[in-house]
Amino acid sequence: MSTLVFGHKSPDTDSTGSPIIWAWYLTEVKGEAAEPVLLGEPNTEAAFMLARWNLPKPRIIDGVEAGQPVVIVDTNNPAELPEGINAADIRAIIDHHKLVGGLETKGPIDIRIEPLACTATLMRKMMGDDLARAPEAVKGAMLSCILSDTLEFRSPTTTPEDRAVAEALAADLGVDIPSYAAEMFAAKSDVSAFSDAELLRMDSKTYEVGGKTFRVSVLETTSPETVLARKDSLVAAMPKVAEEDGADQVLLFVVDILREQSTLLVPNALVKQVAEKSFATLCGDADTVVLPGVVSRKKQIIPNLAL
Amino acid sequence: MSTLVFGHKSPDTDSTGSPIIWAWYLTEVKGEAAEPVLLGEPNTEAAFMLARWNLPKPRIIDGVEAGQPVVIVDTNNPAELPEGINAADIRAIIDHHKLVGGLETKGPIDIRIEPLACTATLMRKMMGDDLARAPEAVKGAMLSCILSDTLEFRSPTTTPEDRAVAEALAADLGVDIPSYAAEMFAAKSDVSAFSDAELLRMDSKTYEVGGKTFRVSVLETTSPETVLARKDSLVAAMPKVAEEDGADQVLLFVVDILREQSTLLVPNALVKQVAEKSFATLCGDADTVVLPGVVSRKKQIIPNLAL
Repeated sequence: MSTLVFGHKSPDTDSTGSPIIWAWYLTEVKGEAAEPVLLGEPNTEAAFMLARWNLPKPRIIDGVEAGQPVVIVDTNNPAELPEGINAADIRAIIDHHKLVGGLETKGPIDIRIEPLACTATLMRKMMGDDLARAPEAVKGAMLSCILSDTLEFRSPTTTPEDRAVAEALAADLGVDIPSYAAEMFAAKSDVSAFSDAELLRMDSKTYEVGGKTFRVSVLETTSPETVLARKDSLVAAMPKVAEEDGADQVLLFVVDILREQSTLLVPNALVKQVAEKSFATLCGDADTVVLPGVVSRKKQIIPNLAL
Repeated sequence: MSTLVFGHKSPDTDSTGSPIIWAWYLTEVKGEAAEPVLLGEPNTEAAFMLARWNLPKPRIIDGVEAGQPVVIVDTNNPAELPEGINAADIRAIIDHHKLVGGLETKGPIDIRIEPLACTATLMRKMMGDDLARAPEAVKGAMLSCILSDTLEFRSPTTTPEDRAVAEALAADLGVDIPSYAAEMFAAKSDVSAFSDAELLRMDSKTYEVGGKTFRVSVLETTSPETVLARKDSLVAAMPKVAEEDGADQVLLFVVDILREQSTLLVPNALVKQVAEKSFATLCGDADTVVLPGVVSRKKQIIPNLAL
C-alpha cells in the first residue's frame, strides 16, 4: 500500500508542493512507494505552481482509512486533518508550526519540526545531497513553496536558511526570483472565481481565544483593493461560514504582500474588541482597520490574539 | 536565564545522561547557557554512570516557573513532566517515544523525534562533527545511555544506528562493552536500598487501557530472583501506590536482561485478565507469569496491553 503524503485541508502552495517533494523523495530516493494527495482544491497560487512546473494535480481525498500509511506535512493539528487521522498509520510528521497537541501515534515515528518559514526548506535540509537527484519540477515546487510562505522573504517568519535554500534553487533552475514571485502572487491575487464563502475558507485556521472560537482567515494578495471591493458581501457571508465551521466569528485579514500590511474587516463589536486588544490599535466606527507590518498569521496574528 | 534541560520524572540512565549531553552541547558548542537538571532521584544505574564518568549529579527540581526556557528530552508526555510545563518556554523536544499529545508550544520550536532506542543516539546524530569536541565524560554518558536503553543491544528497540554509535564511542573511549554493560546492569540490579513502593515507582509509566488506568512498572535486572524474593511485600504495596498515583492497578514486570524474558506479578483477577489477553498466555492459579522474549515496555508491553 502506497504511503499517502498530505498537508492540511486548505492546500496552499506549501501544502500542495511539500507532499509532491516528499513523495518524490520517498519513492525515488528511499524506495518506498508514496503518493502526494490533497485534502481539498489547491488555491490559485498552488494551481499556478503545478502548471508552471508541469506537475500533475495530486488526487484529492476526503478521508483516510484506518491503518493507511500516511506522512503528514505542513501541519501537526488534527483539526486541519481528516477525521480519524489517529487511526491511520502515521509514519512521519514534517512541519514548521507550533506543537498543537492532539495527534497520537501507536509507536515512535519520525517527527521533525523546526521554526523555519516553510516545510520545503526543512525537507531540503533533510534530503541533503539527494536533492541533486531531484527533477526540475521538484526543485521548482520547492522554490515556489519557499517564496510563497516567506512572501518573497518579506514575512518575519523568514530565516536565513529559507532564503539561502530559495536562492540556491533559483540559481540552479535559472529562475529570476522577483519576476517569478510576482507571477505567483498575481495568481494568488486572482480571486474572481471564488465565492465569498470560499474566500473566507481559502486560508483559514481555527483558534480558541478567551472562550470564543475564531476562524482566522488570511488572504495574501498584491491587489487588496480587489478583495476589499467585496467587503460588504464578505461580511454578509461570515455568520453562515462561522456557524457551519463551528466558530463564533470569522476574522478576515487581507494581507497586502507588497505594502507589508493587513486590513482586518471589523463587522461588529466582537471583532472590534479583538482588534483593539490584540493589535494595540483603535478602530473607531470604521468597518476595517489597517495593521501596518502585520503579514504573518503564525508570527504576528495568532501570538497576539486576545479578547 | 539558563535553559533547563531535563527528561522525565523517573530518571533512568537516558533521562539522566541525555540532559547532561545536551546541556554540554548547548553551552559549549551553541554558546547558549544551559543546565542539566533532574525531576527526581536518579536510579542506581544512572548514579553508577555519574560516578564512573566523574559527572556531578544534576540538581533536582520539583517544578518549572512560567516562562522558564526548557529543553525536554526523552519524553513528550506531559504526565511525565512537571505540572504547568505548557506555561514554560519550551525551546526544543528531543525524544524517541511515540507522540502522546498534550504538550503545546506558543510558537514553532525544534522538535526531533525518531524511532531509535535511545535519546542519546539521536543527539549524536544531531551533533554531527561537534561530537569530537565533547569531553570523555559526555561521550561516556552517551555510551551509557545507549547500553542502558538497548539492554546491551538485546532489546528489540535497538536499531543499527544505536549499535554503531555505541560501538564507535566504546572504541574511542577504550571501553570494553560487555564488561562495562555488566557493571551497569549490576548497579541497576542492586535494589536493596529501595522500599517496595520505591521499586514500584522506579521505572513506571501510566497508561489507560479499556477504561482502567495502569501503572506499568518495569524492573530491569540481571538478578530477577532478588526482586522476586520480595514478591509478597511488593504485591502488598501495590494498592497504596496505585491509589496515590491515581491508577487502578500496578503491573510489575521484572525484566531478566540476560535471559531476555519478563516475569509479571499476578496478584488478582484483573492482572490475570490483562496478562492473558495481552500476551496470549495462561496464568492458571500462579501469582506470577513468565513472558519469554518480552523485555521492552515500549515495543512489546504497551502495544499489546489489552483488557
